[in-house]
Amino acid sequence: MFLARVYVTLKPAVNDPQGLTILGGLHTLGFASVEQVRMGKYLEIRVDAPDADAARAQVEAMCRKLLANPVIEEFRFELDAPAPAAG
Amino acid sequence: MFLARVYVTLKPAVNDPQGLTILGGLHTLGFASVEQVRMGKYLEIRVDAPDADAARAQVEAMCRKLLANPVIEEFRFELDAPAPAAG
Repeated sequence: MFLARVYVTLKPAVNDPQGLTILGGLHTLGFASVEQVRMGKYLEIRVDAPDADAARAQVEAMCRKLLANPVIEEFRFELDAPAPAAG
Repeated sequence: MFLARVYVTLKPAVNDPQGLTILGGLHTLGFASVEQVRMGKYLEIRVDAPDADAARAQVEAMCRKLLANPVIEEFRFELDAPAPAAG
């Protein structure tokens, strides 16, 4: 069992209305020193695989096929050593 | 200028319908070995602060006041050394 931590972010050139909204909210709350907010997704995925290479290949395929939109998003992930299953 | 990487996740006991939907989608796509998906948020925030301690205090306050819902979510963040401003 491996735990993959996946980060999906918008490409730098892509407009981020959600980030801009949060930036506006932070300014309204008095956090004037915030200059930029970029919003992304974070996923924790538990995969059953015989070894780390197999797990890595599977998570990479999941990102390409479902988790990230390659037109506007980038992804990266880290793989943790075998983790105990949750709940 | 500091770059804070903020991770907002649901508390372990909280139901995660979005993660369950992604899990179902992955199974439908043939990734049968996926056992759990938990969905979270990832934010990159650029803050102007005189030093790291001040930046850390500000980001912590932002998380408490706006970015995370303390009833159902947890947050953690990392602070990167002064980064060049983007764009």
